[in-house]
Amino acid sequence: MAVYSEVLSKARLARDASRVLGSASTVDKNRLLLMITEAVQNEQQRIIDANEVDLDNLKQKDGYSAAFHDRLLLTEQRIEAMAEGLRQITALEDPVGEVTGMRTRPNGLLIGQVRVPMGVIGIIYEARPNVTVDAAGLALKAGNAVILRGSSEAIHSNKVLVQIIREQLLKSGLPEDAVCLIEDTDRAAARELMRLNGLVDLLIPRGGRSLIKSVVENSTVPVIETGAGNCHVYVDEGADLEMAAAIVLNAKLQRPGVCNAMETLLAHREAAKDFLPAVLPLLLEAGVEIRGCPRTQSYHPAVKEAVQADWETEYLDLILAVRVVDSLSEAVDHINSYGTMHSEAIVTRDYDRARLFLNSVDAAAVYVNASTRFTDGFEFGLGAEMGISTQKLHARGPMGLQALTSLKYIIYGSGQIRP
Amino acid sequence: MAVYSEVLSKARLARDASRVLGSASTVDKNRLLLMITEAVQNEQQRIIDANEVDLDNLKQKDGYSAAFHDRLLLTEQRIEAMAEGLRQITALEDPVGEVTGMRTRPNGLLIGQVRVPMGVIGIIYEARPNVTVDAAGLALKAGNAVILRGSSEAIHSNKVLVQIIREQLLKSGLPEDAVCLIEDTDRAAARELMRLNGLVDLLIPRGGRSLIKSVVENSTVPVIETGAGNCHVYVDEGADLEMAAAIVLNAKLQRPGVCNAMETLLAHREAAKDFLPAVLPLLLEAGVEIRGCPRTQSYHPAVKEAVQADWETEYLDLILAVRVVDSLSEAVDHINSYGTMHSEAIVTRDYDRARLFLNSVDAAAVYVNASTRFTDGFEFGLGAEMGISTQKLHARGPMGLQALTSLKYIIYGSGQIRP
Repeated sequence: MAVYSEVLSKARLARDASRVLGSASTVDKNRLLLMITEAVQNEQQRIIDANEVDLDNLKQKDGYSAAFHDRLLLTEQRIEAMAEGLRQITALEDPVGEVTGMRTRPNGLLIGQVRVPMGVIGIIYEARPNVTVDAAGLALKAGNAVILRGSSEAIHSNKVLVQIIREQLLKSGLPEDAVCLIEDTDRAAARELMRLNGLVDLLIPRGGRSLIKSVVENSTVPVIETGAGNCHVYVDEGADLEMAAAIVLNAKLQRPGVCNAMETLLAHREAAKDFLPAVLPLLLEAGVEIRGCPRTQSYHPAVKEAVQADWETEYLDLILAVRVVDSLSEAVDHINSYGTMHSEAIVTRDYDRARLFLNSVDAAAVYVNASTRFTDGFEFGLGAEMGISTQKLHARGPMGLQALTSLKYIIYGSGQIRP
Repeated sequence: MAVYSEVLSKARLARDASRVLGSASTVDKNRLLLMITEAVQNEQQRIIDANEVDLDNLKQKDGYSAAFHDRLLLTEQRIEAMAEGLRQITALEDPVGEVTGMRTRPNGLLIGQVRVPMGVIGIIYEARPNVTVDAAGLALKAGNAVILRGSSEAIHSNKVLVQIIREQLLKSGLPEDAVCLIEDTDRAAARELMRLNGLVDLLIPRGGRSLIKSVVENSTVPVIETGAGNCHVYVDEGADLEMAAAIVLNAKLQRPGVCNAMETLLAHREAAKDFLPAVLPLLLEAGVEIRGCPRTQSYHPAVKEAVQADWETEYLDLILAVRVVDSLSEAVDHINSYGTMHSEAIVTRDYDRARLFLNSVDAAAVYVNASTRFTDGFEFGLGAEMGISTQKLHARGPMGLQALTSLKYIIYGSGQIRP
């Protein structure tokens, strides 16, 4: 008998399991999700014990950051949040089985499309162990099997979480291989997963830029690129400057470390005259470092000089690039040149310019008079989120359950043959 | 000034052109398409002259096949067919601008999605020069710029066709770089195109297996995999055997060299008893070589022994693998194991088994009581086709204009900020 690698053998098992999950009823899937919810709550101590092993191992290493430690840490409260996430996923409508576009062709063939699970979804992610439960819950609800590949730092936490899920799969009569964890945390194992065309239908990387880049560059399995957000707010000539200030402060300060936070502020030269003298001190007071174009620098002595790299950088920090532009079209060009097609906003009072901005900015989410911070599965009413896609293929913006499904054509005939 | 490669400089020009095409009106795009249609007809001689250079060059080479020569050849009739294809594309509804799912969130934000062009689409294809006009027409109608990379054998034909299209773009006031041809037919140029993330939004390979494999393996730009079809017809216990014979003969013989032709016939052991003795002679008479399992061999002495590879092979030829199975579920397992998720059919009289087959076969198009040969953009009512996707991401089955678009979220606010 052939001996397969861990990745290949688990992918084969997941593929088989996906056939069963794909035809599981909504009732069965929801019962499973509630069983996992309860198990996660009941096994709190087991999870925390495993997590402590990961945290202890981390402490042996040099130079880990407090932020990294925090991402790895599981507490009672965070475990409760996982359970709450599962309950929310359970409550979502099942996307599988929806039929669209059914119509009879002139030859009598009845042709339409039915929404089906994607099949086997691979998730490659970094330290946060809550992704394990979150991603598994979403994948299962949409009828998929999932292969999880977390980081070495979280391996003990991930093992216990996956074991808890698999115990409930077994108990519920569904195949436990619907959720598989790759325990080999070597880079080669991840590379192998990225090349399993035919066994893995979709790969979603969740984590920092270098992780996503590595998956996009090495994967032959279809990938959904997520994450990077170099987002802009453009304050138009004649905008309500009070509204503009509220949006700018919110987009920069409400949570600076996330992908939908603003990284560059663009102001029309006419708006800049009153707006920048008013808003720059507020940003500086809040601890934001401002890097501006020469015209921006003329509005406040604390503004540092922006260089080319500033227009291209997703700071994820209390730093803001600011540029004064001569026109709406210059703002749009700046965004389409430097943006990462994530979330872009205009603040304006002008109907035509709002329309023009909406039409000409090439991004997953384009806003008029609102903060970019709303780009999020919950805020958009999807009820949950598997990440925010910044590519145009398949899914763009926040990905809910529907992004984890595909459409297949079904054709009802009565003996038709092609003439 | 930096000097860019042909591929990179054309991709940059195409990206800029795509911004203009993306907001062109349906009226403008249709006028352009009709201008190209007329130009293709008026410039017939210019096209045929260029094609003759390609054909002459081909004759200098050793070992080219008659089939290859035929794929490369352009005739008056074929040029008329190109023009007719463009007229059909012109008549199709423009998918761009459709708005879906608009709803007001509790905080007053009005959120929905608008259908937008994909942006820049790269097409990598083989000898047939009619793909040049066809692909450009579809891409333009959906508001995209297109970068074409044909094969060296068709370079003179492709150059003239692209020049004719670009002349009409210029005349119509739209940017001529909306259609670019990579004239460097070296493999390295194709590889460069496959890695232009950020400039190219989508790559579609059109051609044989090795071309598609090469694009899937080397591309970091999102790809839609097209083509390979190892399709099955399963004749169920109790099926109408006359209908089954008509479908089997059609699926195998109507055009054996295409991706939606049947490559393996599966017969339930009860159906096989009457069906195989009746249909095998008809197939053999039509010149089909039959490779069967032992039970199939017992029904006709001319049936050769099938080996493992036969279940996996897309013959595209007058060869058919035949297997007798003990149950519907064995047929489904066979299809899900060996199929390429293209087109699969059951012939049955049983309602529940029809349902089960539709639900459990994992393919782009699943048929009850009809020939697999219908999997085609025109037959499905899409009006045109950019290829048949065999992946699950974004588009599955025949791809029409909608597959060349994406959805972007548009959000209308009144000053909302995230609490």
